[in-house]
Amino acid sequence: MQRSELQALTFDVFGTVVDWRGSIAREAAAFFGARGIERDWSRFALDWRARYQPAMEEVRSGRRPWARLDDLHRENLLKVLDEHGLGRLGEAEIEHLNRAWHRLDPWPDVVEGLGRLKQKFILATLSNGNVALMVNMAKRAGLPWDVILGAEVARAYKPQPEAYLRAAELLDLRPEQCLMVAAHQDDLVAAAACGLGTAFVPRPDEYGPGHPKDRRAEHAFDLTARDFIDLADQLGC
Amino acid sequence: MQRSELQALTFDVFGTVVDWRGSIAREAAAFFGARGIERDWSRFALDWRARYQPAMEEVRSGRRPWARLDDLHRENLLKVLDEHGLGRLGEAEIEHLNRAWHRLDPWPDVVEGLGRLKQKFILATLSNGNVALMVNMAKRAGLPWDVILGAEVARAYKPQPEAYLRAAELLDLRPEQCLMVAAHQDDLVAAAACGLGTAFVPRPDEYGPGHPKDRRAEHAFDLTARDFIDLADQLGC
Repeated sequence: MQRSELQALTFDVFGTVVDWRGSIAREAAAFFGARGIERDWSRFALDWRARYQPAMEEVRSGRRPWARLDDLHRENLLKVLDEHGLGRLGEAEIEHLNRAWHRLDPWPDVVEGLGRLKQKFILATLSNGNVALMVNMAKRAGLPWDVILGAEVARAYKPQPEAYLRAAELLDLRPEQCLMVAAHQDDLVAAAACGLGTAFVPRPDEYGPGHPKDRRAEHAFDLTARDFIDLADQLGC
Repeated sequence: MQRSELQALTFDVFGTVVDWRGSIAREAAAFFGARGIERDWSRFALDWRARYQPAMEEVRSGRRPWARLDDLHRENLLKVLDEHGLGRLGEAEIEHLNRAWHRLDPWPDVVEGLGRLKQKFILATLSNGNVALMVNMAKRAGLPWDVILGAEVARAYKPQPEAYLRAAELLDLRPEQCLMVAAHQDDLVAAAACGLGTAFVPRPDEYGPGHPKDRRAEHAFDLTARDFIDLADQLGC
């Protein structure tokens, strides 16, 4: 990656930009708490998320046609509600809970960091989340994206190469003019294979304190940053 | 259109948001002026733009496969340079001139109006311009879009219904939750046929002073506004 060539930063979102585990747990606690129901809501969030990759894999493999993440999340929610003995909810309640993914909170450094990075670079989402989810999340959380890209516009879920390459193509940039920013090393390795630059921003609390996944860089990334403010510092923003 | 249901404003861009004629004339005057060449640059802009609809019609009709507006603009530029006796330019010069469409200036009310509208609504481009063009224009001009939609993500040029319907679908909204904002009545009529609400914002100087096109509403639109500030007033922003 030539720093002087860099035009766009493309961001993974779930885990890298927003704290899905804490936010889903907060939403579930509020929703079920109001109904007098107590559970381990962090566990509930983790169990819901555990069904994320297998559901996308059905699409990636071609075993099922394209489906938006909102729809995959909903199917997974019904299973997780069942597993946790949370019984039958009405249609509006299911929809409200499923929309919790549109109401995720950013990590504390994100809004300030993105605001600085936006002065110098195009900021694009490159998430497996669908467009409406990304737009609604950004409006609520104040995330200043220049453009929403990712799985739905590419019709391909990361880590399929089409997801990364289509983002660069839509920006009319060569892959090496884009820097993929993610807390997940598998995402960065896939982006690098497509020619994008890579910035690893570990989020050690994503899966809960002490979880071993993605705590330390195990590959040669172009950059490693503590958070988005450190990333802005390193990129001269 | 139910005002209380309204969630997103979808904007035509060329002519409605930005003054393409004045901006292209300005760019051409600067580029050729530096080379000692004088012409009627407003005429040059109009002639370049006159080739816009016929070029898209080749794609809409299926006579040629999908092509981005940047590429259509470039083909048209070569013809217009020839017509105006502007001879042979180098590759980098052609690219620079063609990128003038990425450097169009907004009408004077736009940045303030969009800033107010953004507090209450999702602001989406619904333009025939490609994604990179819209993103680069927005960065330079300070246009605070929430999401870039339109022809390239729909793979359909307005006024084809797919262009409007795909925008609503990507936002996960019903068409009637979207308000199409345009200075062109044919665009609004096509949007209305897809179920979108319509706001007519005439830009009487788009084609030059005294030009008769689209000066007055000739259809029953949901709203007619003088400019984006008036639109924000009418929508309670």
